Amino acid sequence: ERKETKCSAAPGPVPKGHIRLYSMRFCPFAQRTRLVLNAKGITYDTVNIHLKDKPDWFLEKNPLGLVPTLETPAGEVIYESPITCEYLDEVYPEKKLLPSSPFAKAQQKMMLEHFSKVTPYFYKIPMGRRNGEDVSGLEAELKEKLAKLSKDLANKKTKFFGGDSITMIDYMMWPWFERLVTFDCLDGTPELKKWTERMREDPAVKATMYSTDTYKAFYKTYVDGKPDYDYGL
Amino acid sequence: ERKETKCSAAPGPVPKGHIRLYSMRFCPFAQRTRLVLNAKGITYDTVNIHLKDKPDWFLEKNPLGLVPTLETPAGEVIYESPITCEYLDEVYPEKKLLPSSPFAKAQQKMMLEHFSKVTPYFYKIPMGRRNGEDVSGLEAELKEKLAKLSKDLANKKTKFFGGDSITMIDYMMWPWFERLVTFDCLDGTPELKKWTERMREDPAVKATMYSTDTYKAFYKTYVDGKPDYDYGL
Repeated sequence: ERKETKCSAAPGPVPKGHIRLYSMRFCPFAQRTRLVLNAKGITYDTVNIHLKDKPDWFLEKNPLGLVPTLETPAGEVIYESPITCEYLDEVYPEKKLLPSSPFAKAQQKMMLEHFSKVTPYFYKIPMGRRNGEDVSGLEAELKEKLAKLSKDLANKKTKFFGGDSITMIDYMMWPWFERLVTFDCLDGTPELKKWTERMREDPAVKATMYSTDTYKAFYKTYVDGKPDYDYGL
Repeated sequence: ERKETKCSAAPGPVPKGHIRLYSMRFCPFAQRTRLVLNAKGITYDTVNIHLKDKPDWFLEKNPLGLVPTLETPAGEVIYESPITCEYLDEVYPEKKLLPSSPFAKAQQKMMLEHFSKVTPYFYKIPMGRRNGEDVSGLEAELKEKLAKLSKDLANKKTKFFGGDSITMIDYMMWPWFERLVTFDCLDGTPELKKWTERMREDPAVKATMYSTDTYKAFYKTYVDGKPDYDYGL
């Protein structure tokens, strides 16, 4: 059973030898950083932020008020999920998640760039549905993009997107697939479906995931405009 | 006098020891890569692409048809300007442009992320003007963002954005300032103006820049919908 904290009061300084993550339990971008922290076995504190009512002490640390944000004992502040993840991979050499070859690293970044065109659908489709709009066009576009990803993976002939073991790009993509269960779009993309099954076996994925029922319940409060960030606690 | 090529026919393989840049002479994103290639003294070929009539052989190499794109003698293809620049900085160790400290590197990436919110104005303002729209709101927003940048630089108390010598972040931002001369917005931002003056002294900037008159003439053809990519050759 993992220990979780509610949206928090102003925390004290970051203890020596620790790193702190400002997060929101259901945020897919913050989950990227949580995955990397867990995969690398890094000791970290979590401070969950109420994103609809951001505390002043948090805005002083990061005027953009974004999660994920990392803070070090020296008071260094790092945000934007891919930047936090690459920072962690560089500072903590154990279990490198990015390849050392510059070209292989560039390939992972290009894949991430492509994937950044997919993530908006995961917001637009449920919000459109909530507003009674016809989202069938968006759903078709998402299906097409997922089919492309599945084909890319099939062409690679590897178990994961960066090779036969999990690397950074898998963790960068996973959070949206964990939330995809409610959409049921993977029936036409068998390679991608197999990838999600392999991902679910990963210890870092298991350590950071929520159940389908929890996501359904949280997203209901979210699309209704009153997100319950502490749902289930 | 630098050698320049017109939009090109299908090129042969990339010679050993070279790297090839697919570019467009006036593209600010491609200039980022040209700046890094020049600053690091890398031997490279340039193939200019007619962006309104992309050749099939180019789309086979990069289906997205984007410039800048790099190609190595091994046939590796790298695109997205920050990815090409970081790749070059890793492969060619001479004159490192990114800091080696993970936090300093993360800071440069966060600055770049902020700056990516500024670049769209350089497209929207002239296009809006071309279409007879009132662009005073956009101009005010751009001025505000430039004032913020100028203040950030003043707070750093350094000559450049990453310290007292030029680093990657300066090259990532420069291309838009080279083109800013037509807007005349730097009078209210003295620190930023001084930075542009320092930048103009840099050999890589000198090697890749065009005159104000050339930009004016090219952008006129561009906003008129018939960009003359070979202007001045």
